Amino acid sequence: MAEKTPADGLIDGVLELDLDRSRRRGAPEAVLCDAKSVEQVRTIAAEYARLHAAGHEDLGPVLFTRADDARAAAILEALPEALHHADAHLLAWPAAPPAPSGGEVIIACAGTSDLPVAREAELTARYLGRPTRLIADIGIAGLHRLLSRLPELREAACVVVAAGMDGALPTVVAGQISAPVVALPTSVGYGVAAGGHAAALTMLSACAPGIGVVNIDNGYGAGHLAAQIARWAPAPGE
Amino acid sequence: MAEKTPADGLIDGVLELDLDRSRRRGAPEAVLCDAKSVEQVRTIAAEYARLHAAGHEDLGPVLFTRADDARAAAILEALPEALHHADAHLLAWPAAPPAPSGGEVIIACAGTSDLPVAREAELTARYLGRPTRLIADIGIAGLHRLLSRLPELREAACVVVAAGMDGALPTVVAGQISAPVVALPTSVGYGVAAGGHAAALTMLSACAPGIGVVNIDNGYGAGHLAAQIARWAPAPGE
Amino acid sequence: MAEKTPADGLIDGVLELDLDRSRRRGAPEAVLCDAKSVEQVRTIAAEYARLHAAGHEDLGPVLFTRADDARAAAILEALPEALHHADAHLLAWPAAPPAPSGGEVIIACAGTSDLPVAREAELTARYLGRPTRLIADIGIAGLHRLLSRLPELREAACVVVAAGMDGALPTVVAGQISAPVVALPTSVGYGVAAGGHAAALTMLSACAPGIGVVNIDNGYGAGHLAAQIARWAPAPGE
Amino acid sequence: MAEKTPADGLIDGVLELDLDRSRRRGAPEAVLCDAKSVEQVRTIAAEYARLHAAGHEDLGPVLFTRADDARAAAILEALPEALHHADAHLLAWPAAPPAPSGGEVIIACAGTSDLPVAREAELTARYLGRPTRLIADIGIAGLHRLLSRLPELREAACVVVAAGMDGALPTVVAGQISAPVVALPTSVGYGVAAGGHAAALTMLSACAPGIGVVNIDNGYGAGHLAAQIARWAPAPGE
Amino acid sequence: MAEKTPADGLIDGVLELDLDRSRRRGAPEAVLCDAKSVEQVRTIAAEYARLHAAGHEDLGPVLFTRADDARAAAILEALPEALHHADAHLLAWPAAPPAPSGGEVIIACAGTSDLPVAREAELTARYLGRPTRLIADIGIAGLHRLLSRLPELREAACVVVAAGMDGALPTVVAGQISAPVVALPTSVGYGVAAGGHAAALTMLSACAPGIGVVNIDNGYGAGHLAAQIARWAPAPGE
Amino acid sequence: MAEKTPADGLIDGVLELDLDRSRRRGAPEAVLCDAKSVEQVRTIAAEYARLHAAGHEDLGPVLFTRADDARAAAILEALPEALHHADAHLLAWPAAPPAPSGGEVIIACAGTSDLPVAREAELTARYLGRPTRLIADIGIAGLHRLLSRLPELREAACVVVAAGMDGALPTVVAGQISAPVVALPTSVGYGVAAGGHAAALTMLSACAPGIGVVNIDNGYGAGHLAAQIARWAPAPGE
Amino acid sequence: MAEKTPADGLIDGVLELDLDRSRRRGAPEAVLCDAKSVEQVRTIAAEYARLHAAGHEDLGPVLFTRADDARAAAILEALPEALHHADAHLLAWPAAPPAPSGGEVIIACAGTSDLPVAREAELTARYLGRPTRLIADIGIAGLHRLLSRLPELREAACVVVAAGMDGALPTVVAGQISAPVVALPTSVGYGVAAGGHAAALTMLSACAPGIGVVNIDNGYGAGHLAAQIARWAPAPGE
Amino acid sequence: MAEKTPADGLIDGVLELDLDRSRRRGAPEAVLCDAKSVEQVRTIAAEYARLHAAGHEDLGPVLFTRADDARAAAILEALPEALHHADAHLLAWPAAPPAPSGGEVIIACAGTSDLPVAREAELTARYLGRPTRLIADIGIAGLHRLLSRLPELREAACVVVAAGMDGALPTVVAGQISAPVVALPTSVGYGVAAGGHAAALTMLSACAPGIGVVNIDNGYGAGHLAAQIARWAPAPGE
Repeated sequence: MAEKTPADGLIDGVLELDLDRSRRRGAPEAVLCDAKSVEQVRTIAAEYARLHAAGHEDLGPVLFTRADDARAAAILEALPEALHHADAHLLAWPAAPPAPSGGEVIIACAGTSDLPVAREAELTARYLGRPTRLIADIGIAGLHRLLSRLPELREAACVVVAAGMDGALPTVVAGQISAPVVALPTSVGYGVAAGGHAAALTMLSACAPGIGVVNIDNGYGAGHLAAQIARWAPAPGE
Repeated sequence: MAEKTPADGLIDGVLELDLDRSRRRGAPEAVLCDAKSVEQVRTIAAEYARLHAAGHEDLGPVLFTRADDARAAAILEALPEALHHADAHLLAWPAAPPAPSGGEVIIACAGTSDLPVAREAELTARYLGRPTRLIADIGIAGLHRLLSRLPELREAACVVVAAGMDGALPTVVAGQISAPVVALPTSVGYGVAAGGHAAALTMLSACAPGIGVVNIDNGYGAGHLAAQIARWAPAPGE
Repeated sequence: MAEKTPADGLIDGVLELDLDRSRRRGAPEAVLCDAKSVEQVRTIAAEYARLHAAGHEDLGPVLFTRADDARAAAILEALPEALHHADAHLLAWPAAPPAPSGGEVIIACAGTSDLPVAREAELTARYLGRPTRLIADIGIAGLHRLLSRLPELREAACVVVAAGMDGALPTVVAGQISAPVVALPTSVGYGVAAGGHAAALTMLSACAPGIGVVNIDNGYGAGHLAAQIARWAPAPGE
Repeated sequence: MAEKTPADGLIDGVLELDLDRSRRRGAPEAVLCDAKSVEQVRTIAAEYARLHAAGHEDLGPVLFTRADDARAAAILEALPEALHHADAHLLAWPAAPPAPSGGEVIIACAGTSDLPVAREAELTARYLGRPTRLIADIGIAGLHRLLSRLPELREAACVVVAAGMDGALPTVVAGQISAPVVALPTSVGYGVAAGGHAAALTMLSACAPGIGVVNIDNGYGAGHLAAQIARWAPAPGE
Repeated sequence: MAEKTPADGLIDGVLELDLDRSRRRGAPEAVLCDAKSVEQVRTIAAEYARLHAAGHEDLGPVLFTRADDARAAAILEALPEALHHADAHLLAWPAAPPAPSGGEVIIACAGTSDLPVAREAELTARYLGRPTRLIADIGIAGLHRLLSRLPELREAACVVVAAGMDGALPTVVAGQISAPVVALPTSVGYGVAAGGHAAALTMLSACAPGIGVVNIDNGYGAGHLAAQIARWAPAPGE
Repeated sequence: MAEKTPADGLIDGVLELDLDRSRRRGAPEAVLCDAKSVEQVRTIAAEYARLHAAGHEDLGPVLFTRADDARAAAILEALPEALHHADAHLLAWPAAPPAPSGGEVIIACAGTSDLPVAREAELTARYLGRPTRLIADIGIAGLHRLLSRLPELREAACVVVAAGMDGALPTVVAGQISAPVVALPTSVGYGVAAGGHAAALTMLSACAPGIGVVNIDNGYGAGHLAAQIARWAPAPGE
Repeated sequence: MAEKTPADGLIDGVLELDLDRSRRRGAPEAVLCDAKSVEQVRTIAAEYARLHAAGHEDLGPVLFTRADDARAAAILEALPEALHHADAHLLAWPAAPPAPSGGEVIIACAGTSDLPVAREAELTARYLGRPTRLIADIGIAGLHRLLSRLPELREAACVVVAAGMDGALPTVVAGQISAPVVALPTSVGYGVAAGGHAAALTMLSACAPGIGVVNIDNGYGAGHLAAQIARWAPAPGE
Repeated sequence: MAEKTPADGLIDGVLELDLDRSRRRGAPEAVLCDAKSVEQVRTIAAEYARLHAAGHEDLGPVLFTRADDARAAAILEALPEALHHADAHLLAWPAAPPAPSGGEVIIACAGTSDLPVAREAELTARYLGRPTRLIADIGIAGLHRLLSRLPELREAACVVVAAGMDGALPTVVAGQISAPVVALPTSVGYGVAAGGHAAALTMLSACAPGIGVVNIDNGYGAGHLAAQIARWAPAPGE
């Protein structure tokens, strides 16, 4: 025998929450997908489509984060006009970010493996309305490359620094600039660095002040915080 | 060469234990399925069917918990009249819960991802004989929704609060009501919140008194405890 | 140069909180002393004395918990009519607990070392209005003593079981009774059991259902929860 | 036989570092005292006095943090015009903070025990030039007090939220305001909350976005980051 | 291009080690399979077959432990006369254990889920030459069953107690008998009990003396130690 | 006001437990002193004196373990004929151990720092009636000394190996002898080895079979287990 | 809709880093493959091919480490002349190592399971230009084999010792030789030894001096460090 | 009654060990003082004096490490000609180090708090016969100072890098030089960095190769390893 779950009512409630957060905090909705079943994700996306079709106002941008291929397909089926940033496991609906305002957010990381999380942070900041830039080739094992990018980094209103393994890059960056640094540990690593816990500890222990740490692989949270920080700063070039 | 395992005798012993617990504690049998092989689960279910066919008395309700699809199928094959609550990974045999008595047990959680464990708790309390209600759309990031449900929560004899990630919801709820709170950490989370350990720590550290914590994802234990707590309380509306 | 801290205003605020909690939840105030300086504790106690002298109503019982000798002396100086339960590191003001009502709360532990925390739990339940009893000589290494106390334990509306070291006692008790068990890990132990963390893990992992766990050494929280649980149960002997 | 340590040369180097950081990042010097011997602290303070007497320019404000009584005395002996904020274990030299500019930084905590660290954060932000306010009587166990302070909190350019035990306050605050939150875990707690690690985990796991976490008890780092964040925001009332 | 690995020489060396251990310690060879590739396991088994065919003496019994289906098949292919105890993931070659001598080793566990590891312990003790018995239906949540088996348990020369979850069973058993207890934590459990670490901590923290703990799921080690302990004890019934 | 604690009744219960254990398990009483207050220790010792003066039979040897100077003095005051082994923080009453029987127990450690715990183990085994020997100068960093003591070690019925730091000695010893090894981690160490946790992990992970591990610094438990193991073995020289 | 990722630019940057490191440190490039997608690995390998075809100088040897079959195939497709050491999950391009110079590096481990990591270390040292040797059949549970290899070990300029489980082998080796030991923990193990963390702790806690530890399974790092250490030592036989 | 401990025999054995290590490994004796009682340290020092007076040869230099004031006084009483390096908590006997040979060992750290451990490393390397230099004013928060010392660092045969808090300095240094780096985590830090564990994790996780890690605060081990590494390297200036 199969019982019916009271899913309809619950999903409505979930959407109520997100809509409210958008109004209250001036930020886009966010749906964390990997803790939900494909069916749950599909239902949420369909509810947005239904609300939109019904002429609902206040439907600001919605970000679907940590979406694998199956969940992304379910979302695109319900919201075909969403933009799928596959490298960041993120979908945005509607596709176009708002016009940029406020100071520039730079996302920095050391290389290839940290790119998905760094891109999630960049896109989040962009969809929250900031101008963004990605610098992906600086690592503390090769200081010259970091040093050559310092002029750029010093123009940012906020720098998100993503790092796995030893997680030491945010400290080095924060010691060289006057803007706040959002430290974003990634789960890139193995052995004692597995899961990103060593990187998170390093970042919380940083000798340099001016660093706020977010959860491991929480690119959305890092980009969100950076966008809030850069909100009042002068636009690049001003 | 293949050796015979002495399974028959052992399974009998296992069932003896559960039958006895039911008599001694006045609670349904429970069979935790995910630590057992499909074959072991099938044998246990078949033994219940055999005992029932043999006219065995004292066979109170049996709950099969944490059952995936393969284990559920094995149970339904032996006990086709069992009720499969797929959203809670739980099967009940017989299907009908007892008539409700005692105070109401409310199960509260923040949203979609905690639902399976919250439903396991709710069903356990219901099969132990309590009236139950599920409130699934309150989260501490949006206080207004919690505040709007306070009148309901204050009528419960016991509230089970399921939460993953930071696990802060039970503290907030316990601070607003006078009934006991059963805090149920879930394994929903990633990074430092992976596995639910951060949520469990938060709940044990709660500033508000009146909170008892159970193991991560232990919806059965939470519902069981809540049903015991609500046993003597007045029925809803009295 | 010495600066003035704005302590006066802040202390008033702290008292506002506690008074409110008492009204809202029907429970006594509680002041956790060991995280506060002696001066801070003295100021809080003096504020209660001042409010009392000013005829403030709603001043229910106040429990000062985890108070060492210096803090206890500071409290008794401001509130000389408080009762100092030195074995529980607890002071109650006023001295007399309310008349007992509801079901009986039994606090059980294995022996000498767990007594201070067990007594803190017992006194808290008593000052919340429950009849209480302390059983201090049962341990799982000697089952006969536990078995001989089972008739008493089975009459309780709630049993608080305090244990350090391996923390296995709550599981054994919960397997023998039908009332809820509040598991109270204590920091008694050394080596891998140091600080009570092993005991807390054991209790959360308990095989028997019907157990809610509180923080290590949180006698106040355990007694508070037990008093809430036993509130609606029949009085002993009824 | 006693050997001479090459302390003189090394101390010079230490001061060079701090002076440079001040120029490079536009922030005051900071001397973390509790990891240094009383003699080392005394030597550093004396060097500042010597440089000042020698007419050294660029000697911006210096903050001596985490200074117990012995270290504070050593500092005041060398720099008698320093201001000792004993409640924050912090000394500032020179005594007067700069004129406030930028947005307001609010430091919020639940009560008495978190005050020293909260005050360290507040003073750091003030000596970095921001207008500051301390709200010390909000806790999630009593939501009404938090709710009554929301209008103030919503006017801040950045809110530092200090919390020990379960560390859940920053999540609740971040869910209600649009400014960034700096989450400051404190070592207030016992049992599983001992040392502040549970609070730090809770804050990193926060459900609400817009939160950057610093090290446990790192009031200096929290205040520094908040001052950077609020730098470009409009002044209060604008 | 594919390079040749110097596997031949290395495998010879591995076998030399095991053969020597057998001579030196009077115990069977043991090959831990799950840390080796299927090819490595196959080569080792083939080397035993080759040595046997070459008339090598001193080839005592060999136990292949923690062997999944693929590794078991590889072993049986090389050593078809080996006995595959599938329920214990163990193969013995030759198939027949030695005639039993010394005191009896009893392996006790609570139920179904611990059986594979308990059986590995039992078979190891049997192949080391002890009389063995398996008692699989005692758990501390139901004391009567444990109590009914006490007469048997008190006749053993050594009792191996396997337990997952809270791992409390060895303490209870050790408190009731005078023979040594080998505590064998199993990885059965979830939440804070995941992986068996909580059970291992409980066993090391046991209040009762007379307990030696082995690694989680190390049925081979537990059975080996128990066989050594029971070596000099009187045979059952003597 | 000072309240009376119900200590008299409780202490009686504690003694009942220990007396019973002695009868049931054939082992001496043991009183773990460091988790008890000086007053509690004094009361327990006085109760033994009272029972002895009253002609109580069955008062086998009592071991007071982990007793610092203050607790030792309290014991000697009540039981002046007790023997104080100050190097092991242990007192025995009566002073004389029983005549040795069974196989020899050897306690081995690497050097000076592990001696107190090693001596506690040796004395416990001796007071349980085994012949004992202490070998304190073998360490794996200098294999020749271990190798030169192998003939002695191979004559023991059981070897207790105490080690701190990396805790590797038990593995090496167990690989060379056929008797069981009781691995006793000590809290000697610093850095990652602080508290003895690394040593305990090493011992549980040992490659060599035949090792049972006890809690860190649990010399009493190690000696007790070794005495049980050696009970049936032939006496030295037989 | 599918967005283009700016991969081209980023990959160029990654290669710039590695080329620079080679020049700066005199060591081969290394590409850690398992944290990169197959596509990313393929792009990097193709870039090396392109640079080589374009006549780029300074393209020293490149090591692709931790490459599974899919990543190895992608590399061989782009760089068919690379040498695939499948047993070490490593590819070298060009295939031939430099002519050996400096002292000999010996890699020692206990047996079969540690071989892949030990081989990765050996090959890295060889491609950095050192003469190497692999000794794979010594384990501390069987000292005689270790002792028989001591003359060889004492001729090495540096010994890498790989070990999982209890990780005790490096201590024993370091105690017998005068050359430095690089301790290489492997993830071989289960239970409390799972993941290699216990082995890493043991090695950091080693009683014998002369040991430097690298990350778990970091065969590349161990071989690299050993090659640096042996650089100035006399060649074998000199 | 007071029992005699067999200390005389044991202490002799301890000394035998150390003397042997000196001969076997060509390194000075080392006596770790803080895990020994003052009496034990005094006895060991006196034994050296006695052996010296008796004309014992082979008494190479002895280092007494981690000696507080009481232990240092006991040593100087027995060996008045020892040299007390109070800043490193180390005593050397005889006072004069050997003439320097081999490559230079540089010890680098960030500042004041790491000096005691850095000095212990430097003195150990010097007493093992290497030329040494201490660079104490480089930290990754201020890169310019590190960069200005690079020419010196690149001349060393081995660099010991001591760091607490985030422990990131060794990675940065290793990325800039071709000599091996010995990473020495210190216990300087608080919050999540308390005890030096975060620093140790960072160092093991380092992105740059060429780093060997020792235990937290193990200045002796770091200096010893560095001296071994630099043994064959050309002397400075050659």
